[in-house]
Amino acid sequence: MTNIKVIIVGGVAGGASCAARLRRLDGKAEILMVERGPYVSYANCGLPYHVGGTIERESSLLVASEQTFREQFAIDVRTNCEVIGISPKEKTVELKNHVNGEVTTEKYDKLVLSPGAAPIRPPLPGIDLPGIFSVRTVPDARNIREWLDRDLADRSGMNTYTGYQTMTRPQRAVVVGGGFIGLEMVENLIHRGLEVTLVEKLDQVMPPLDPEMAHLVERYMLKHGVQLELNDGVAGFQQSASGSLEVLTSSGKCLPADIVILAIGVRPETALAKKAGLEIGERGGIRVNDQMYTSNPDILAVGDAVEVKDYVTDQWSLIPLAGPANRQGRIAADVICGRDSRYRGTQGTSICQIFEGTIASTGASEKVLRQLGDTDFEKIYIFPNSHAGYYPGAKYLAIKVIFRKSDGKLLGAQVLGEDGVPKRIDSFAMAIQMDCTVYDLEEVELCYAPPFGSAKDPVNFAGMVAANILRGDMPICHWDSVDSGFLLDVRNPAELAVESVPGALNIPLSQLRARLGELPRDREILVMCRTGARSYNATRILLQNGFKARNILGGILARSMLMAK
Amino acid sequence: MTNIKVIIVGGVAGGASCAARLRRLDGKAEILMVERGPYVSYANCGLPYHVGGTIERESSLLVASEQTFREQFAIDVRTNCEVIGISPKEKTVELKNHVNGEVTTEKYDKLVLSPGAAPIRPPLPGIDLPGIFSVRTVPDARNIREWLDRDLADRSGMNTYTGYQTMTRPQRAVVVGGGFIGLEMVENLIHRGLEVTLVEKLDQVMPPLDPEMAHLVERYMLKHGVQLELNDGVAGFQQSASGSLEVLTSSGKCLPADIVILAIGVRPETALAKKAGLEIGERGGIRVNDQMYTSNPDILAVGDAVEVKDYVTDQWSLIPLAGPANRQGRIAADVICGRDSRYRGTQGTSICQIFEGTIASTGASEKVLRQLGDTDFEKIYIFPNSHAGYYPGAKYLAIKVIFRKSDGKLLGAQVLGEDGVPKRIDSFAMAIQMDCTVYDLEEVELCYAPPFGSAKDPVNFAGMVAANILRGDMPICHWDSVDSGFLLDVRNPAELAVESVPGALNIPLSQLRARLGELPRDREILVMCRTGARSYNATRILLQNGFKARNILGGILARSMLMAK
Repeated sequence: MTNIKVIIVGGVAGGASCAARLRRLDGKAEILMVERGPYVSYANCGLPYHVGGTIERESSLLVASEQTFREQFAIDVRTNCEVIGISPKEKTVELKNHVNGEVTTEKYDKLVLSPGAAPIRPPLPGIDLPGIFSVRTVPDARNIREWLDRDLADRSGMNTYTGYQTMTRPQRAVVVGGGFIGLEMVENLIHRGLEVTLVEKLDQVMPPLDPEMAHLVERYMLKHGVQLELNDGVAGFQQSASGSLEVLTSSGKCLPADIVILAIGVRPETALAKKAGLEIGERGGIRVNDQMYTSNPDILAVGDAVEVKDYVTDQWSLIPLAGPANRQGRIAADVICGRDSRYRGTQGTSICQIFEGTIASTGASEKVLRQLGDTDFEKIYIFPNSHAGYYPGAKYLAIKVIFRKSDGKLLGAQVLGEDGVPKRIDSFAMAIQMDCTVYDLEEVELCYAPPFGSAKDPVNFAGMVAANILRGDMPICHWDSVDSGFLLDVRNPAELAVESVPGALNIPLSQLRARLGELPRDREILVMCRTGARSYNATRILLQNGFKARNILGGILARSMLMAK
Repeated sequence: MTNIKVIIVGGVAGGASCAARLRRLDGKAEILMVERGPYVSYANCGLPYHVGGTIERESSLLVASEQTFREQFAIDVRTNCEVIGISPKEKTVELKNHVNGEVTTEKYDKLVLSPGAAPIRPPLPGIDLPGIFSVRTVPDARNIREWLDRDLADRSGMNTYTGYQTMTRPQRAVVVGGGFIGLEMVENLIHRGLEVTLVEKLDQVMPPLDPEMAHLVERYMLKHGVQLELNDGVAGFQQSASGSLEVLTSSGKCLPADIVILAIGVRPETALAKKAGLEIGERGGIRVNDQMYTSNPDILAVGDAVEVKDYVTDQWSLIPLAGPANRQGRIAADVICGRDSRYRGTQGTSICQIFEGTIASTGASEKVLRQLGDTDFEKIYIFPNSHAGYYPGAKYLAIKVIFRKSDGKLLGAQVLGEDGVPKRIDSFAMAIQMDCTVYDLEEVELCYAPPFGSAKDPVNFAGMVAANILRGDMPICHWDSVDSGFLLDVRNPAELAVESVPGALNIPLSQLRARLGELPRDREILVMCRTGARSYNATRILLQNGFKARNILGGILARSMLMAK
């Protein structure tokens, strides 16, 4: 134990974790935690659900109060208090009390920056019109709720019977940005009964997913009544004659809205760090080492404001997630207390609920690997049941797994579905953390009972499919490279009615051995079925009979993901 | 590819997997799969749910038909056909066709035994009375359903209005044996509206769990109306005057029953292996090596009939589970085809649904380690929320984690709860498979969004608690060794009303720093709260202020698990 004085800037995830851990490790340290906003340790991940009403009371979002920090941890907490300057030489900070306007100076021995990230608000025409909100703080959520609870003059005007103006609640929302917060806001606004349009500049929602997986999400959203405007940015906002908002898009559309939610992403809060001369990384976040030290030996930084190493690609990244922020805060506290804790990097494990569906991913996407010029990878698509098909309620999962061709190391996984997604994504996440190969996925013993899984869990199944490729048992191709081959469809005739592939010869798997004579020996045969499982068996039959054959991975289901793009 | 002939004895999990894989690897091999019963590849894990009616149609249980194996895999399948003898010297088997009684002889190059295990039916008085069933095969389930659908003469006798005998369905069931099948049958019989009594010879249900964890399950079952008779074996069965059954227990009880389900476990089917002179292991299963070879170089064996190495303890074990059986079948096929596949051992990952609750475990239990004389382990209990507490529907999980004291290696985990159990047990299962330490559990990045988890997932939290112990940050004690210490309860006074511990001094955590003077400096202070989290903070405060202190792990919740035993 020491008598050092630690100042922590920011009292939410990373800062609060750091403060509590610090106190547990050092009973004597003087700890001052300052928070610009009115609350410490609040659950900003819960804000969309508070807007939607699933989390009814605002107070539920306040995880630990100032009082808790004071009483249980003997931490000096100051809310509505902003650090407006750092003097690294004197090791002091300037604090501004936003209640009374006072500015004071405090000395530190160690300074921990956990300022978070700010929602991006591009300087578009009309951006400051009333009714345009971000979703980052408890007051943000409160303002949105109040706005949604207002009585509006009904657009239809006067009630012809009563002669009074009819009143109504906001009905039309435009959400700008299709990432986590955007999707959660879409769900919650629909949950409140609004009509929702989602505007996204990219050609896909959910940037951590590869586009063909995101496409399944988009289809799902359309099915649930969301209006999607992809590939279209926002050019500005204006107020209509009736007083409601209009969102103008780059393509020239004008989307009426009673409320607009901006969820275009966040930007690390680095103003203070820059002023203090701390190194800023290539992605615009505060640069730290694996002990969370900035370029200054007495200043550490954690959370959404820092750049982290991507655990899989080893690239500097901005990955604003609560779990990593908490762990970084804990590590910073350890390091201040002289321990050799080190941050392993962030693998971007994330999950998002949208209606009954769940979207999850971990590790690297194909998109990211391609951007890095990495070609030493292969991908698979599988569509297994979430649990034993014979037990009611099984839903199919859509799983994409990416692994290294040269050594089988698992690089990333994306899982979508209405059942059993958390179980699978966490298995993959743990596997990536432990540098698992697809051969390990084949063997791992996961839980199975009919309501929960299958004797071969989808995670095992992914391992088996991937290992079959790497061992050379299953030559494959993907739909994006299906060109000159001879197409063989081994589904049953009844299935062709649902969707058929032009030019493909249909021989059901059960008849294949008997009808090999119908197939060309001089061409490569590309085999498909619904999911890629029967076509694997067919591919084996063809190979064993001297044909050249490849299995089209993911079958018709993978094709439909790509085709509809 | 070869022209070898492989005979596979048993056409369910291990045998069927082996056959299909073999065909995929070798298009020319002659494969004969014989199954004593009427069906191949049926879902015996689904049988309790078919009895209960959740799985309505018997045909749902038939995963792949004989026809599928014939047509898609060109496998010669013979059901109702039993291998009654093996001549390892001649490399032949004797087959008996149970339909026409014919006995034939078939040559093999490689023989794979996958005969499974038979339900134990102890030779008790009355064991063969009608109405006493095992649950192992499709016909078993059919017989139980028919028995439950019978009209019985009402025990109340004549209907006084109509003068006719009133009729009723079976109402009272006794399930003998509290393992997986027993519990699943209890749930399913209650689901059908029966009154159920569970008789178990041991002092706990669910043998893979440690007794204090099983106790939570027992309490849960009692709450759901199950009558429990633990510590009591069955002495015999008899028919009452009214024609219904009576189960007589060792302690002298007489339990009335309209149906009895025997679920006392299974015994590996080794008769054939013994006759063929194959080595039988110390636990009574067929002894195999990690390539699934028996003591005969041309005979392999897989599934419930073989002994496997326990992945964690390295002991020979009988672990009849579907997942391992499937993997072993696949490995046997690989090995026959000359591949160097090896079985890693079984870690006993299992999961069981009981009402809204889920019971899961993986790896070694404390009980097993103690039986082996292993003392190099520590255990923790935690009771975290299944997901963020501020999001509706969070339920508390009861988690026990066992790890090696000397190096932190994860040895086992037991997870109970009504939400989020599969996600956690599979994380632990994957972790054990990858030889994870508790330090890895601290860092692993699992998925988090309010409906699914917490920024510190329970799995991270378990790692942190365990690592705090190993790093010396948190001296602990368990309730079973609380004796001479000074008991300090840091809960809030309102919580004491629910359950208080005699002789404990109550100082709420928030007042502890101010009231240190009330505590003795010459005695070790044992600190408790509800779950062990606040008492950890209190222990840190005491240690930092020069007191001797230990945290009672799991707090009042752990105490109630043990006390009520």
